[in-house]
Amino acid sequence: MGSTFGHMFRVTTWGESHGGAVGVIVDGCPPRLPLCVEEVQADLDRRRPGQSRIVTQRQEEDHAHILSGVFEGRTLGTPISILVWNKDVKSMDYVPMKNLFRPSHADYTTQAKYGIRNWMGGGRASARETVGRVAAGAIARKLLHVKAKTEIIAYVKRVHAIEAAIDPSKVRAVDVERNIVRCPNRATAEKMIAFIEKVRKSGDSVGGVIELVARRMPVGLGEPVFDKLEADLAKALLSLPASKGFEIGSGFAGTTMLGSEHNDPFVMKRGRVRTRSNRSGGVQGGISNGEDLILRVAFKPTATIVKTQETVDVKGKKTTLRATGRHDPCVLPRAVPIVESMVALVLADHYLRQQVQCG
Amino acid sequence: MGSTFGHMFRVTTWGESHGGAVGVIVDGCPPRLPLCVEEVQADLDRRRPGQSRIVTQRQEEDHAHILSGVFEGRTLGTPISILVWNKDVKSMDYVPMKNLFRPSHADYTTQAKYGIRNWMGGGRASARETVGRVAAGAIARKLLHVKAKTEIIAYVKRVHAIEAAIDPSKVRAVDVERNIVRCPNRATAEKMIAFIEKVRKSGDSVGGVIELVARRMPVGLGEPVFDKLEADLAKALLSLPASKGFEIGSGFAGTTMLGSEHNDPFVMKRGRVRTRSNRSGGVQGGISNGEDLILRVAFKPTATIVKTQETVDVKGKKTTLRATGRHDPCVLPRAVPIVESMVALVLADHYLRQQVQCG
Amino acid sequence: MGSTFGHMFRVTTWGESHGGAVGVIVDGCPPRLPLCVEEVQADLDRRRPGQSRIVTQRQEEDHAHILSGVFEGRTLGTPISILVWNKDVKSMDYVPMKNLFRPSHADYTTQAKYGIRNWMGGGRASARETVGRVAAGAIARKLLHVKAKTEIIAYVKRVHAIEAAIDPSKVRAVDVERNIVRCPNRATAEKMIAFIEKVRKSGDSVGGVIELVARRMPVGLGEPVFDKLEADLAKALLSLPASKGFEIGSGFAGTTMLGSEHNDPFVMKRGRVRTRSNRSGGVQGGISNGEDLILRVAFKPTATIVKTQETVDVKGKKTTLRATGRHDPCVLPRAVPIVESMVALVLADHYLRQQVQCG
Amino acid sequence: MGSTFGHMFRVTTWGESHGGAVGVIVDGCPPRLPLCVEEVQADLDRRRPGQSRIVTQRQEEDHAHILSGVFEGRTLGTPISILVWNKDVKSMDYVPMKNLFRPSHADYTTQAKYGIRNWMGGGRASARETVGRVAAGAIARKLLHVKAKTEIIAYVKRVHAIEAAIDPSKVRAVDVERNIVRCPNRATAEKMIAFIEKVRKSGDSVGGVIELVARRMPVGLGEPVFDKLEADLAKALLSLPASKGFEIGSGFAGTTMLGSEHNDPFVMKRGRVRTRSNRSGGVQGGISNGEDLILRVAFKPTATIVKTQETVDVKGKKTTLRATGRHDPCVLPRAVPIVESMVALVLADHYLRQQVQCG
Repeated sequence: MGSTFGHMFRVTTWGESHGGAVGVIVDGCPPRLPLCVEEVQADLDRRRPGQSRIVTQRQEEDHAHILSGVFEGRTLGTPISILVWNKDVKSMDYVPMKNLFRPSHADYTTQAKYGIRNWMGGGRASARETVGRVAAGAIARKLLHVKAKTEIIAYVKRVHAIEAAIDPSKVRAVDVERNIVRCPNRATAEKMIAFIEKVRKSGDSVGGVIELVARRMPVGLGEPVFDKLEADLAKALLSLPASKGFEIGSGFAGTTMLGSEHNDPFVMKRGRVRTRSNRSGGVQGGISNGEDLILRVAFKPTATIVKTQETVDVKGKKTTLRATGRHDPCVLPRAVPIVESMVALVLADHYLRQQVQCG
Repeated sequence: MGSTFGHMFRVTTWGESHGGAVGVIVDGCPPRLPLCVEEVQADLDRRRPGQSRIVTQRQEEDHAHILSGVFEGRTLGTPISILVWNKDVKSMDYVPMKNLFRPSHADYTTQAKYGIRNWMGGGRASARETVGRVAAGAIARKLLHVKAKTEIIAYVKRVHAIEAAIDPSKVRAVDVERNIVRCPNRATAEKMIAFIEKVRKSGDSVGGVIELVARRMPVGLGEPVFDKLEADLAKALLSLPASKGFEIGSGFAGTTMLGSEHNDPFVMKRGRVRTRSNRSGGVQGGISNGEDLILRVAFKPTATIVKTQETVDVKGKKTTLRATGRHDPCVLPRAVPIVESMVALVLADHYLRQQVQCG
Repeated sequence: MGSTFGHMFRVTTWGESHGGAVGVIVDGCPPRLPLCVEEVQADLDRRRPGQSRIVTQRQEEDHAHILSGVFEGRTLGTPISILVWNKDVKSMDYVPMKNLFRPSHADYTTQAKYGIRNWMGGGRASARETVGRVAAGAIARKLLHVKAKTEIIAYVKRVHAIEAAIDPSKVRAVDVERNIVRCPNRATAEKMIAFIEKVRKSGDSVGGVIELVARRMPVGLGEPVFDKLEADLAKALLSLPASKGFEIGSGFAGTTMLGSEHNDPFVMKRGRVRTRSNRSGGVQGGISNGEDLILRVAFKPTATIVKTQETVDVKGKKTTLRATGRHDPCVLPRAVPIVESMVALVLADHYLRQQVQCG
Repeated sequence: MGSTFGHMFRVTTWGESHGGAVGVIVDGCPPRLPLCVEEVQADLDRRRPGQSRIVTQRQEEDHAHILSGVFEGRTLGTPISILVWNKDVKSMDYVPMKNLFRPSHADYTTQAKYGIRNWMGGGRASARETVGRVAAGAIARKLLHVKAKTEIIAYVKRVHAIEAAIDPSKVRAVDVERNIVRCPNRATAEKMIAFIEKVRKSGDSVGGVIELVARRMPVGLGEPVFDKLEADLAKALLSLPASKGFEIGSGFAGTTMLGSEHNDPFVMKRGRVRTRSNRSGGVQGGISNGEDLILRVAFKPTATIVKTQETVDVKGKKTTLRATGRHDPCVLPRAVPIVESMVALVLADHYLRQQVQCG
């Protein structure tokens, strides 16, 4: 009972990785927003499995069907239902794992909590659930673009220890999409790709950090004290499979600065209150200040590896496991549009909430 | 409109730092829980300003009044209202700052969002708002203790670059409370205290990292996909003033490991499914697995410093500011009980939710 | 943004009457509940258009597809997604009404609120939206049956001025289903059917009252002070198209009694606290007392009639309208399973909430 | 766990009838609304016990204290906390009832649900809880007045069988307040007062019907399909102590009309779409159409009577009860401002929600 996100722009995802379909309902999208299925599809394609040699080879077209809420190219203000059929389901891959718990997966906790699980795939814990998030995120992104020209760009900042030097204020979406690892620094991207391929061949997996920048941020988003903008962003991003950390602006590194070094002085630029530096990451006191939103998310190495691992079965007997399914050696390239989607959902929700607050 | 937290154990805080009082309503606490005001007071005392030479010298007794919901030493199942009067209010300290925006504070964003602010103090952005969180957290903690013997201990892990070596599985609450900085490693604590005092004398401020461990965790807490345990924890902790980052288990550091190094093998111990290592930090797939919950929160250096800073006033005119109020040179010692409280609120909420889910 | 109902048993419906499909997501249904699609279908069949000569002749099979949340005949504890395709859509019937507002329909208010509407049918205001409610209600009903053997029976109590004498404590579901108007008093049912047919032939429409009894009610359902059981029931039932009134127990008639006549004396029966009379209708202080739940809902005559009516068009020009689509001359026979479904949703939600409250 | 009402204008009440105080938090009131404590006090005075000879003689000043959220005469956009101390508490009156269940009160269900109750008075089931509703309602009413000049007037329409002829479109607040029973028809009011006095002297109690009209209604309030305006109104009003029924517009009486008689024809008046009649009661398809909102609420006779009644004690033993406390022989006169408050809360909440929906 936790499949709904958002207060005004309210998203409910449904579907198991090996059920008939996955999908999402968006309730609260304002009426008359121009929207066509291709806009949703574009983001789904960036999330799609099988898109390159460094992601899972499960083949899914992930074709979006808009079943309600859109009429003659515009939203109705009614719930938007989007459905994607599951096609390339190889449930037999999971038979050997039916009765055991894959290490660092959700198998054990799901079984312990619910007393039942769909052992044909990862169920709701599978990255497949994020299809609905990305479809909804595309609508949120459109809303933000139409209302405020806000632009949201995520990219792979680091894979394992390979970190790219990137200026968030200048990065372009087109540069992110130029390579299969989605790191806009071309030289570093090549190193990352080579490393991921090496790791994949060894049957292992690898994690890293995604950074995100949102530009042309509206001022005033965030509802203190609990629904601060960074709080809802943190929740959104820690709700993603495999994420283990979140930071905004200076983040953990900022803790080694003194206040006099860390504070962002206010200055006037073109008649607007701005900050000279942006260690705040675009949020102060839980409310956006109009500067670029900058955040980072840590993703652990994929839990599924093609190596023999120690584990126990559902009866508590010691055993070993060697995965055979199709999995991502590194979730980061496909996680880029997912991170963007979650941020778009949070910003759209707060955009709508702020309209009321300041009516 | 964001002053309520939780789904089943629902907490609403109210009050400005320089209004008449601050307080909290807890709705959803189960009936018949033994509760006395002293239990609430104990945690408020740990949060209290003026408790030592390294925190703000504002003097507040922070005496808790339970106005409803408790009858003859037990909860009624009705809303529990707790009120704390504001006493040592020196609003005149704020007069010089009435018309300008303190850097890296919420002054500007509050003004921009609401078009009005209580300039006598930080309003809702003040740490004073956390009085209500701590009072509610004491009740949540009691609930968890009674129901599951869960124990929640936070401590200062790092101040600036001074980091303490602490084994989360062994740390004791009594050791945390033994010194004024709330770092259970005595030698490091002394260095931290000396450093904070030095920084305070120079009119500057400093940040750091708080680590938290929860032991005897119930299995099954967390409601995928959006209300995963770590997602709600991240929201809770990023909703605190001055927090800039959150990580669970291996966190950001875990991103430089390979999957084969990072996965936690399952083993049987005393008839229970356990993990040999705990890089997951007690949560897998968004659901607690019974291992120790381990998380860290980054706090930036306090924004208020006694140094001249560049800023603008409400009319957009360039000016400078030199604070004179009473402020914490380092928020971490007082943030320890606050972090514990937020974690207790999340765990209590999920404890109640899980009862339903698995009825 | 109001398509979700319930706190723990959370239902979200989607779909327009003339879009591709309609459906529902149920989030919060406990795991391991036995459930098969036939159980859902049975209630949909009772709601189905075209089922008899006194309801709309739109022909829809309303075949339910369960797309997620159920595995090997049991619920998973994950969102249950149910979809029903729209088939017999005659949008052309609506062309003459595209630019005008049908009296006492939602056309004008929808246009005024959203600035757009799907003029091909009633959109979300159509009774077709209740497909999702009935599908979800079937699951709620199953849950209540499995957990508490609770039985929910609604029936047509009155059509226009034709009222049936029925003892709620004895009425049987099988008697309700024995005739097409769903009035368990056979003689009165025949009069009702004859009257509805007469009204239909004259191009007019008619309303009435549905009564509902729930037996084997759990004690303790309802969450004062706002989420009292009768409050959530009233909301649920007033959210139905065409409903104009709600009463519980003695209702409006009870206002002409004195307190000494109206109060329900407590007595002991078989070791349980019971009431001798049941003017409370099974709820006292917002909480169920274990007596039969008894309530009534008023439905106005269907707004669509085959008579010339005065109205205005979207440009504010005076005009007339004579409907030609296929409509119910009386909504009550099909509303019986819908009323049952809404009550089941409320009871299931409160059943789950109560487990926590009293844990 | 049901003490919060509203989605955007969110109200949380707290307090038992015989605890230290009662109060309310309003979260979501927009900033910069002019507000002074006298405006809140005025409505509390109309709800106050002891105000006339036909209501309870408990003497409470019910003095409102605004503890947060208002600064220099305007709202801050932060939570508004209002507290009223309990003063004239005669808990000893309740000692004889400590161990038994008063018929048609919440004693039994509270005990059964929570396993504990504050037997000194009615706890949360007491009408005293409505102090917080009325205080919050005064703010909602102010918001509606400032934003839309909406005027909300309730009055006693019927006591027992004594019904007043009143034209809702013309009734004035001043006429309602002119007599102690709050029926604007003077002649009928006198009959009602005489009847209530007679009933009071006989130790009995009496119920009736309150009617409410809201004029200058904004068009577009209501969020189909579950949060329709009449659905939220029904919930709000059925959440009041002693209410047993709700109807809007033609209500139950409308069920004996034909569609051709019942439909409200659309006409143009002064360039606006209006309806010639108003059987819809101001709401169509769950959304306000700008016509007067008209609704009625049924209140049962007060459960507390000074007559010997049959009941059982907490151990299940047969016994009798004869109340001695101070109680209302008829709740309706004091319920008038409470009904207005609940309607104001619903309208304010939907006013804010609609701003977003139609941004």
